Amino acid sequence: MNNLEFESKFKDYQNKINSRLDNILSIADIPQKEVIEAMKYSLGANGKRIRPILCTAVCEMLSHNMDITADEREALINDAIYVGCAIECIHTYSLIHDDLPCMDDDDLRRGKPSCHIKFGESTALLAGDGLLNFAFELLSDLSEYSYIKSDKIIKIISELSKNSGVYGMIGGQIIDLACENKTDADIKLLTKMHRLKTGALLRASAVCGAIASGASDEIIDKIISFAMSLGLAFQIKDDILDFVGDEKLLGKPVGGDLKCNKTTYVSLISLENAEKELNVLTKQAEDTVSELDFSEFLVCLSEFLLGREY
Amino acid sequence: MNNLEFESKFKDYQNKINSRLDNILSIADIPQKEVIEAMKYSLGANGKRIRPILCTAVCEMLSHNMDITADEREALINDAIYVGCAIECIHTYSLIHDDLPCMDDDDLRRGKPSCHIKFGESTALLAGDGLLNFAFELLSDLSEYSYIKSDKIIKIISELSKNSGVYGMIGGQIIDLACENKTDADIKLLTKMHRLKTGALLRASAVCGAIASGASDEIIDKIISFAMSLGLAFQIKDDILDFVGDEKLLGKPVGGDLKCNKTTYVSLISLENAEKELNVLTKQAEDTVSELDFSEFLVCLSEFLLGREY
Repeated sequence: MNNLEFESKFKDYQNKINSRLDNILSIADIPQKEVIEAMKYSLGANGKRIRPILCTAVCEMLSHNMDITADEREALINDAIYVGCAIECIHTYSLIHDDLPCMDDDDLRRGKPSCHIKFGESTALLAGDGLLNFAFELLSDLSEYSYIKSDKIIKIISELSKNSGVYGMIGGQIIDLACENKTDADIKLLTKMHRLKTGALLRASAVCGAIASGASDEIIDKIISFAMSLGLAFQIKDDILDFVGDEKLLGKPVGGDLKCNKTTYVSLISLENAEKELNVLTKQAEDTVSELDFSEFLVCLSEFLLGREY
Repeated sequence: MNNLEFESKFKDYQNKINSRLDNILSIADIPQKEVIEAMKYSLGANGKRIRPILCTAVCEMLSHNMDITADEREALINDAIYVGCAIECIHTYSLIHDDLPCMDDDDLRRGKPSCHIKFGESTALLAGDGLLNFAFELLSDLSEYSYIKSDKIIKIISELSKNSGVYGMIGGQIIDLACENKTDADIKLLTKMHRLKTGALLRASAVCGAIASGASDEIIDKIISFAMSLGLAFQIKDDILDFVGDEKLLGKPVGGDLKCNKTTYVSLISLENAEKELNVLTKQAEDTVSELDFSEFLVCLSEFLLGREY
């Protein structure tokens, strides 16, 4: 797969995900429409859609070894996109709550005013709650007309809720808060934090795609291993971008971690070593996923995430 | 069913629910243990457990017309208690977020410091997020060893998430905020707010119990009608207690609604008319549920909620 083919496939996934996301929340003229507008505002705000793309691409890769018709494959991939949209709701809620004054107190998100700056703090709080909740509304709706059946949907809800909860992403957020102004955080704690805060939801994205395709435990283990390397690489890249990135591309000021004395890979092991670690982990992710058939897109995605500028 | 029998059955439900709630969150020596402690603190804080009791009692009532063995009935009721615990997690998260400074800014909850007073605002925010998320972890875990099967669990997740989301409870919370300092809110908006803010989760509690028992659509409609009358009565009683209740029993100052110019049933239609409305709705709930067999406990529960002092 060359660069052009990758970009075209990536765009295609993005478009399908964005058009689905556009349609999932209806704003009727109801008294609570403000909170729905806030949810849509944050959902629509220039997200890269990495998590739903990961979910859909893993499902599509594994579907090529399934004995199904072209129509069934299309239905399956459509379901994976839908699962991906639920994951994007969870990701977006976590950003809204992370930006709140009592958390990171960030006024900008992807170059636009954060949800609480635009809509006020209480509406932003409820919009975040609404998006987390809405993810499970979406997933439970899936059973009515989907190709994937109830037992798999329950497994997807289980994988996703566990990885976004206190033993997953929320656990990472609380460790992250504890790491502020804590100069003695070590690499072990930092890695644990990243594995939970960013890694857990990326892992769940890939695994949910695999569950949708009915993958064996052995395949799922390989997907987990791939996603864990990719997830940690993703966060190290975030740390690096916060240190040397381009503010215009990032849509927020760089140096935010430094400003609040946050321990990062860069502050802990130096920029040079963080870049080395990023390369090693990306290579690991690529090698692991390469053992599976039809893995070209996911190899290219790993490479794309390594080189991203925002 | 006389008063003593009702009280004993009520206590028995409460004990079973409390002991299950005690065991569902494990605090290992992990870096994120503070947020788990905050979740347990709020979950444990003297809740009446009305929602899980409603869920379990509806399921038990309907189970008597099912052709199952005593062991199967016990397994089913145990599952309903577990579903009830998930509902209690959602109820508790909504209280934690409602108490936050950007919402109602309440320092006391059931006579104890609110979660954010005890643990700080960011931990309370994440504890709320954690509890909402945890409800779905619990429900998706249920399938592994439960009597009720995947298709019913999906229906339960659907009913619960829809009623706790922006078209349900969260929608009610945002209307509630909009009603502060709004002296021209009318009875229609107030009723809509209550139906969503308190009614939706009470309705879901009863309906989830019915779904667990495999009830027909006709029975579920009756349960919805019962729960909607009960839910609105419940909220009117809350408004009345905020006006004339005993601070010691309530565990919080009375007059909070008045203080922040909140429109309530009492402010809108007078105390006397609110009490009349409360009686009419309670009677409606009792009449509706009485049409079903084995409804004694639920009739007594409606009466108990009418007379409650906190």
